[in-house]
Amino acid sequence: MLTEFELIARYFNRPPAPDSRTALGVGDDCALMTPAPGMQLAISSDMLVCGRHFFPDADPAALGHKCLAVNLSDLAAMGAQPIAFTLALALPQADPEWLAPFSQGMLALADRHGCELIGGDTTKGPLTISITVFGEVPPQQALRRDAARVGDDIWISGSLGDARLALAGYRNELALSDTELLQAAPRMHEPTPRVELGVALRGIAHAAIDISDGLVGDLGHILERSHHGATLNVDALPPGNVLQQREVDLRRRFTLAGGDDYELCFTAPARLREAVEKAARAAGAEVARVGSIDREPGLRLVDAAGEALQLDLASFDHFRT
Amino acid sequence: MLTEFELIARYFNRPPAPDSRTALGVGDDCALMTPAPGMQLAISSDMLVCGRHFFPDADPAALGHKCLAVNLSDLAAMGAQPIAFTLALALPQADPEWLAPFSQGMLALADRHGCELIGGDTTKGPLTISITVFGEVPPQQALRRDAARVGDDIWISGSLGDARLALAGYRNELALSDTELLQAAPRMHEPTPRVELGVALRGIAHAAIDISDGLVGDLGHILERSHHGATLNVDALPPGNVLQQREVDLRRRFTLAGGDDYELCFTAPARLREAVEKAARAAGAEVARVGSIDREPGLRLVDAAGEALQLDLASFDHFRT
Repeated sequence: MLTEFELIARYFNRPPAPDSRTALGVGDDCALMTPAPGMQLAISSDMLVCGRHFFPDADPAALGHKCLAVNLSDLAAMGAQPIAFTLALALPQADPEWLAPFSQGMLALADRHGCELIGGDTTKGPLTISITVFGEVPPQQALRRDAARVGDDIWISGSLGDARLALAGYRNELALSDTELLQAAPRMHEPTPRVELGVALRGIAHAAIDISDGLVGDLGHILERSHHGATLNVDALPPGNVLQQREVDLRRRFTLAGGDDYELCFTAPARLREAVEKAARAAGAEVARVGSIDREPGLRLVDAAGEALQLDLASFDHFRT
Repeated sequence: MLTEFELIARYFNRPPAPDSRTALGVGDDCALMTPAPGMQLAISSDMLVCGRHFFPDADPAALGHKCLAVNLSDLAAMGAQPIAFTLALALPQADPEWLAPFSQGMLALADRHGCELIGGDTTKGPLTISITVFGEVPPQQALRRDAARVGDDIWISGSLGDARLALAGYRNELALSDTELLQAAPRMHEPTPRVELGVALRGIAHAAIDISDGLVGDLGHILERSHHGATLNVDALPPGNVLQQREVDLRRRFTLAGGDDYELCFTAPARLREAVEKAARAAGAEVARVGSIDREPGLRLVDAAGEALQLDLASFDHFRT
């Protein structure tokens, strides 16, 4: 059986990166970080619990990826460049067959974004993964939820709903062919945090949030904090490749309130449409313009013809479901 | 039933502190912190799991205190001044009867140290509390584990072993009177992080660690990382008030390898004994000089007369027990 110290040394210790902010990494009471002069630090925590956020038999490499991805997605939604993270891990046992792919999946994504593992904790307990991630953003350039302005366009990156479609397949809520499940599953298991897009939108976008609980609920946070309303063209929402082939009702439901998308929903002045599209191209991300911020409170859903839609949607809430 | 957002708003949202480093607190994708110019950031994470680190029926106010205290203790062991923390919380249900005292216990300690709650996560799951804490320390002044030098004195703050004695009482490993348990229990449930002492030891102490797993094991980390050995005068170790009255064998065992003490073990040059004692007085902490750092590797235990002791001790390891 591995001790706690052997476990960390074997699976999670890494050589420091050359342009590291880390003055001292894993192995002391604290890590020491030297913040870049003049930058603000963006900080976010997410906790993933077995049986709630992932299946007990989840592929450990994909799970390692996803746990960090959902945290990086929060940095992306702030326009922050990732620099480091801590990992607190409760494990039923120290199983190398699980730890090796889990750490590889996580650290591969970390390396892709220059995000260094600087500390954490391991303990015995029900499988729980708690990450705190750190990023840098210049003062006044963070993409805050409270910064949407009347007349802003509302944009969505990538596509929505395939993660929810895969979940529906696993849960037997819907019949999915093997091919459909195979195509949709990576959107659920290995989301792509829109880090480059978030950084590219600094100085262009006003407000941003990442879509984790479903677009309606998450856009709702922007509206609430910005004290504005919005009109959303439901038929402009970009469905995932698999969802695309489904009937309109399901498409609407899963793009509006699917969850687990980890795309960005952001607002930007209408005069900066070209700048948004250019930033997205540079960041290698698709973006779709799906609505606008209004003075009138509340969220209005309309179809392609501009007709009002009445849809019954409930955003995901961890203590209500 | 409370939603996740109501839960955070009701129990964990606070007005920002006047001299806050926090540019943006709870409620966005990330918190934003403005680090003090020229300071390093000390960062530590600890995860506490129900049934492993605390009893399921633990008093929630004391538990809230303890979860933050063990993290502040890591900052103390680095000589860092607390500034902020994030809290990720998995709960079986959102129970106000539990949440109110839990958050009060935690935030009372946070306020005492000017340590602001800036973000986190709540989810449904087996009761698990994961905290990441942030502190500031001037560059080159952090008390690192690898900084002990040959000839350094070894010092201990406060007293050791009463937390372990209380645990022995609860576990019926030992018979404790009600009075004894009542006196010892707070050392287990509501440890005092030695924050002021850690800060006061900047520029005086070389190496430091907080004693969470037992002195022998934790001092061992200093020795391993500093590539030195040590001699420890076992009879100079300060036992807690209750342990004090027990037989010598138990005193030795629980001061050397009790665990859950959250005192500081630190090393400092012999020529700075007065400075250490002055710093301790200013910080309101007792300190005891209990040994010295040697060139010869390994840890030598001696009694008051300098005679070698052979004791069978095993430090606590989360994956070995």
